[in-house]
Amino acid sequence: MVSLSEKILTGDKRAIARAISTVEDGRAESNDLLKEIFPHTGRAIIIGITGAPGAGKSTLVDRLAAHYRKKGERVGIIAVDPSSPFTGGAILGDRIRMQNMATDPGIFIRSMASRGHLGGLARATVDAVAILDAAGYDKVIVETVGVGQDEVEIVKAADVTVVILVPGMGDDIQAIKAGIMEIGDVFAINKADREGVLRTERELEMLLSISERPDRWQPPIVKTIATENSGVEELAEAIRSYAEYVASHGESAGRRVSVARHRIIEMLRERLLKAALKRGVSEEELRSMAEDVAARRRDPYSVVEEILSRMGIG
Amino acid sequence: MVSLSEKILTGDKRAIARAISTVEDGRAESNDLLKEIFPHTGRAIIIGITGAPGAGKSTLVDRLAAHYRKKGERVGIIAVDPSSPFTGGAILGDRIRMQNMATDPGIFIRSMASRGHLGGLARATVDAVAILDAAGYDKVIVETVGVGQDEVEIVKAADVTVVILVPGMGDDIQAIKAGIMEIGDVFAINKADREGVLRTERELEMLLSISERPDRWQPPIVKTIATENSGVEELAEAIRSYAEYVASHGESAGRRVSVARHRIIEMLRERLLKAALKRGVSEEELRSMAEDVAARRRDPYSVVEEILSRMGIG
Repeated sequence: MVSLSEKILTGDKRAIARAISTVEDGRAESNDLLKEIFPHTGRAIIIGITGAPGAGKSTLVDRLAAHYRKKGERVGIIAVDPSSPFTGGAILGDRIRMQNMATDPGIFIRSMASRGHLGGLARATVDAVAILDAAGYDKVIVETVGVGQDEVEIVKAADVTVVILVPGMGDDIQAIKAGIMEIGDVFAINKADREGVLRTERELEMLLSISERPDRWQPPIVKTIATENSGVEELAEAIRSYAEYVASHGESAGRRVSVARHRIIEMLRERLLKAALKRGVSEEELRSMAEDVAARRRDPYSVVEEILSRMGIG
Repeated sequence: MVSLSEKILTGDKRAIARAISTVEDGRAESNDLLKEIFPHTGRAIIIGITGAPGAGKSTLVDRLAAHYRKKGERVGIIAVDPSSPFTGGAILGDRIRMQNMATDPGIFIRSMASRGHLGGLARATVDAVAILDAAGYDKVIVETVGVGQDEVEIVKAADVTVVILVPGMGDDIQAIKAGIMEIGDVFAINKADREGVLRTERELEMLLSISERPDRWQPPIVKTIATENSGVEELAEAIRSYAEYVASHGESAGRRVSVARHRIIEMLRERLLKAALKRGVSEEELRSMAEDVAARRRDPYSVVEEILSRMGIG
């Protein structure tokens, strides 16, 4: 019988989908699977794309994917949706997109949502990227709605990070605070036919000029109108130029080590919590402890200390 | 000598600031402090305010704080800035705000940024809220730029969550995906003098009509123009009405238990990782493991298993 990992390496889409579900659920068998495929990863260029809601990320990602497809490359897309704390699922938009794109055998698109309180979204996303990488996709695009720590972590795991802005958002001090500025290797000002594009561009240039990057790269600014497919080629070129810069300046190794370090920490964090919930405290105990804390009969700090000491950690 | 916790209980601002720094840094002594003040918490109404960058959160929060001040209440404000993965600090805007507000003895304002990879921002924020609560602030407002998981967790710890929208963002399918919709107990459409306000209101009403809340509350929509102080009173009234609804429908206890549970989990997560980095693996080993993983000499899954087994967990 052909194993799941072997099927992934041949690019079998159903196997890929199943494997991603496994890592998303954090099931135990995913560990062995990931160990098996790991030696086959590291070939894909991983592109992280982030920006505020309404910036037109999905459309731009779709156009970029179409651009790579025209060049004969295979493209994997992970749309991270950290939202929906109640429903825990991806909504409307992605389903429509996935139907449109599913007809192209060279594209794999998948939406991932945060599930429950154990978190692990960043870890699951990185694992899903590894699966697509091993499956031979040339480009893996990770798209996040983004200003949270989770998303920052996700895009930091990419080889190239693109931050999408739209005209008119730069005129607020809050936009500066969003902090996504600092993680962009390439900037796209989308909806560039809107009023205020020059002002946004100037403000962005100003912000970039005062920030100093450890790798001394000057992030290019590309103007795009995704709905009209305008600027997409320039964006692809900017992405390529950063990937090349990194490779030729020997920064690549450093970035990959820090990504690996971060990944180890995240996996450790998740596994430790799982162990605590399995061996340190039962679901019923946790519930009754939470009730005590809510009623202020007990403080949460001593509760945590009790759980740690039961695990032999203290 | 008067202890730090005693000073906090008397509302000493310098003691409060010092205590918040302690929890922000995750220093060991913060645990005892938090245990001491914990029995004095639970009196404040905690208001979480979130919305995309550019929505005008800071201005609206300032106006709301001024409204409460006029009624003689004391207001604590925590501005969460999950950004700045490189600089790790709060920027420009908050400093300006803090200077303006620092003259009012009934207001305490503090900006909190995520620091480093250990995370813990959500935990630190909740601890800071507890300090302000114990210090006798009647309202504690937690303001986040927000669509990430971190921010969702922070606002879920509030008694009342306000989501701020602006006209013109609702016309994109991405806005729906932002997911913050589902956590809003009250909605404010800020910058309500802008074009498109009716459309945004209609779309929001539509979205709210199809989503079902466990507590059956119908979130009110308030139109505000923060810069002109318009709609602020209505917003305060909407916040008050939800707090009352929750209290009168017995939902309050359930919410507080789930907040407490979540808090225990988060604290546990942070303490476990700290223990791992202290006892499971040294910084040098971690570095060399990350190098092995980056070079694909070793897979991260077996690295994590090794660290866990050293800790006696596996």
